[in-house]
Amino acid sequence: MSESSYSVTELALLLGAETVTSDYLIDGIGTLESATETQLSFLHNSRYQSQVSASAAGAILVTEAHRKDVQTVALVVDDPYLAYARATALFANNGRAVSQLVSPSAVISSDARVAADAVIGPHVVIGERVTIASGVVIEANCVIGTACSIGENTRLAANVTLYSDIEVGKDCLIHSGAVIGADGFGFANSNGDWVKIHQLGGVNIGDDVEIGAGTTIDRGALDDTVIGNGVILDNQIQIGHNTIIGDHTAVAACTAIAGSTRIGKRCTIAGACAIAGHLTIVEGTHITGMSMVSRSILQPGAYSSGTAAEPHQQWKRNAVRFRQLDEMSRRIKKLEKTVKQQNIEGQP
Amino acid sequence: MSESSYSVTELALLLGAETVTSDYLIDGIGTLESATETQLSFLHNSRYQSQVSASAAGAILVTEAHRKDVQTVALVVDDPYLAYARATALFANNGRAVSQLVSPSAVISSDARVAADAVIGPHVVIGERVTIASGVVIEANCVIGTACSIGENTRLAANVTLYSDIEVGKDCLIHSGAVIGADGFGFANSNGDWVKIHQLGGVNIGDDVEIGAGTTIDRGALDDTVIGNGVILDNQIQIGHNTIIGDHTAVAACTAIAGSTRIGKRCTIAGACAIAGHLTIVEGTHITGMSMVSRSILQPGAYSSGTAAEPHQQWKRNAVRFRQLDEMSRRIKKLEKTVKQQNIEGQP
Amino acid sequence: MSESSYSVTELALLLGAETVTSDYLIDGIGTLESATETQLSFLHNSRYQSQVSASAAGAILVTEAHRKDVQTVALVVDDPYLAYARATALFANNGRAVSQLVSPSAVISSDARVAADAVIGPHVVIGERVTIASGVVIEANCVIGTACSIGENTRLAANVTLYSDIEVGKDCLIHSGAVIGADGFGFANSNGDWVKIHQLGGVNIGDDVEIGAGTTIDRGALDDTVIGNGVILDNQIQIGHNTIIGDHTAVAACTAIAGSTRIGKRCTIAGACAIAGHLTIVEGTHITGMSMVSRSILQPGAYSSGTAAEPHQQWKRNAVRFRQLDEMSRRIKKLEKTVKQQNIEGQP
Repeated sequence: MSESSYSVTELALLLGAETVTSDYLIDGIGTLESATETQLSFLHNSRYQSQVSASAAGAILVTEAHRKDVQTVALVVDDPYLAYARATALFANNGRAVSQLVSPSAVISSDARVAADAVIGPHVVIGERVTIASGVVIEANCVIGTACSIGENTRLAANVTLYSDIEVGKDCLIHSGAVIGADGFGFANSNGDWVKIHQLGGVNIGDDVEIGAGTTIDRGALDDTVIGNGVILDNQIQIGHNTIIGDHTAVAACTAIAGSTRIGKRCTIAGACAIAGHLTIVEGTHITGMSMVSRSILQPGAYSSGTAAEPHQQWKRNAVRFRQLDEMSRRIKKLEKTVKQQNIEGQP
Repeated sequence: MSESSYSVTELALLLGAETVTSDYLIDGIGTLESATETQLSFLHNSRYQSQVSASAAGAILVTEAHRKDVQTVALVVDDPYLAYARATALFANNGRAVSQLVSPSAVISSDARVAADAVIGPHVVIGERVTIASGVVIEANCVIGTACSIGENTRLAANVTLYSDIEVGKDCLIHSGAVIGADGFGFANSNGDWVKIHQLGGVNIGDDVEIGAGTTIDRGALDDTVIGNGVILDNQIQIGHNTIIGDHTAVAACTAIAGSTRIGKRCTIAGACAIAGHLTIVEGTHITGMSMVSRSILQPGAYSSGTAAEPHQQWKRNAVRFRQLDEMSRRIKKLEKTVKQQNIEGQP
Repeated sequence: MSESSYSVTELALLLGAETVTSDYLIDGIGTLESATETQLSFLHNSRYQSQVSASAAGAILVTEAHRKDVQTVALVVDDPYLAYARATALFANNGRAVSQLVSPSAVISSDARVAADAVIGPHVVIGERVTIASGVVIEANCVIGTACSIGENTRLAANVTLYSDIEVGKDCLIHSGAVIGADGFGFANSNGDWVKIHQLGGVNIGDDVEIGAGTTIDRGALDDTVIGNGVILDNQIQIGHNTIIGDHTAVAACTAIAGSTRIGKRCTIAGACAIAGHLTIVEGTHITGMSMVSRSILQPGAYSSGTAAEPHQQWKRNAVRFRQLDEMSRRIKKLEKTVKQQNIEGQP
């Protein structure tokens, strides 16, 4: 819940819409269906066009084409969805107001350098030689290991864990339960026993990165694991050691990326994918949900794998056939040969 | 380990079994194979019928049909598994006894309202305007954000994180590592850069809900994400923003449900599934493990996808053929046409 | 970053290499490409052979066959990767140095038994009747439930949660965000409502076990969940109640193993697999990434399932055909019959 309000004139100005003159106050955002008369709404998908004229919203972000559908005030922009995104920043209050800068219950190493205006929540633990820049907010119960550095205005939600030697850029947001810098899964095998390869690298996270709840990013074996600028990672993603994720790449929830894979810039990887280790995935690759990527992708484009849900009994029959596919293929080939032979023999 | 004990007569009464007269004391529960003579056991699956007569258990929950197999005391019920479930509640001690109501190390906002009999563990942090009802237990190191409300007798295990504006009903159990209310994954794209859509909705969780360890439920973009009454969620599930899960639906571990999907009542979704966003899945749908659901399911029933493990070398050959499936299908069609033609030509 | 250094002579001795006489000091490890002249490197894969002669590394672990390629000092061993693993232990400093044994902010039950040399970090909570052995390190914000026992030299990274009645062996490493002993997902259904089966078992973890960040291991329903000696578990793995994992088995990230499954010794299970409950998987089984295992595996060997990513448009056509597979198979059979008949009829 927000306590901000803006006149329609101000909103038009702030969101880059065509100028509107109105003192009418807007105090929130709602969907076309649910917005009240003091809320802003938006038309993002023409599927919802019919809802525009029925909407009670006090102002609606639309493109020129839909201006006439709005019964209240139209705020005309090129990209209503983008304008909506910008509007959410105006009405967000981050909901986790702090009453003091450094909680007395935080345990901060004496040689950590914490900016005077940084906020350190209750029960936070900050290790030796940590650097916390101006405007940083570390919420309750986070643990920051030795020699980490956190850039300006970055925010860690409650219960985030950073191991040692993690570098986080500025303007990042890391959600609760994320673990950055745990050991990569590296072991040598000695007569059947696993011998640990201690992970001596760190993690390097760029600027403007968002990391979702419960996401884990492992430290490198020797070199660092690297997350580029502007990368957005959803919840419960796993990123193996020494993986490199290019700038502005987006990864949706529950995707697992194994170690030493390099993903290019501006890729989108949907949820629940599994990407093997030591691969190269080029800039501009888009991978759909639940795909298995076991080879490098060297041409930009969209890639998929898997099979979609169907009624169980029908699936059972098809899934059995999957295991006969190679045999089926051979039978087709044999049939083609036989039929061709018959054709020849059948010729007069 | 429990410190409770009950006479067989009491147990029969408490579990709704046929009346039995016996002062014999039962102090725990075991499987048919491992139960000692002071433990209760149960026959759930007739596969294990042969173990009944050999079991040392002091009393055994069985249906009428198996009464004669029990060498000690038969507790005859309609549904032994359900009676066993009820018996576990008698012997559970929750193992996390607390010696005082509010730990002195908890940090509780001065305007939070905490019921006099609520238990607040060590290092818990409770934000502004939070309401904690009677009988609630918040275990160690949990963080409860601004303006949350937690209903009667709900229990949060250690290290649970609630962001702001989360409403949790009564009699819920939330396991460690769960994160409720982190930002949904909403971004608009502006010339290749991601612009954050601040997530202004909350999360609304009904009564009698269980949420597993490490499960994440994102807050809504504008409206709330909703978890119905009696829903049970296993570990490491991901639930996107504005998803709605109907009453009494069960979801097993590691399933990912993307945003704005509506799942009906009394569905069962097995583990490791991936369900796309903006879908409708009707009441009474059952989805088997590791299925990919990318379209709405509008007819109740069982659904599946995927292929089952087979020896690797064999799989390799079949998986290659999967990528030739469309071509194979065309070749079959062509063969059918040719053969039909030959048949016609072959007619005398 | 390490502060250790060793002469080349010492390193050869410590890593079991052929004797070398050199006072030259090595202070770290690097890849062949990045190592500086005071660092050790290694040739693990002959693909990188060409990098050996160009490497600036002060010493390089190689097999006899590659001794001649090294321009600086060759450290000749049988298994350079294993020697590298051992070398990492020499240069690891664990990066999370502690300045005192028991943090004053830890809350430790008065009847817990904590060894005099154990390290208990800030805000750790230790419940009643817990036993912490010599050399144990419990990092910040961990919570250890009632009646747990932790063996010698085991280390818990920050923010680990152990419920009650968890037994952890010696020399284990448990990473941040791991949750051990949450309730297994056990419910009986009573007319559409779920009745909780309280989980009365514990978790028993052997010696030399590593557990990754965010991994969850549920407590048993009646008996314990069991993790054998030398098992290595990567991040975000889910292990259901009463599952048994045999000694020295390795499981990669994001794999889900349902309840009551028994996995043998020395298996390797790759990432993102889903393994159903109540199965038996024999010793020496190897499962490739993202496989779905829904039946027991009774013969050792490698197993796989799934389909690999391909261009999206092509995949769409093939995925549609998957749902026609059974029909395709029947059509092939029919064709074979017809063609055979034609052949017979075609005989002169």
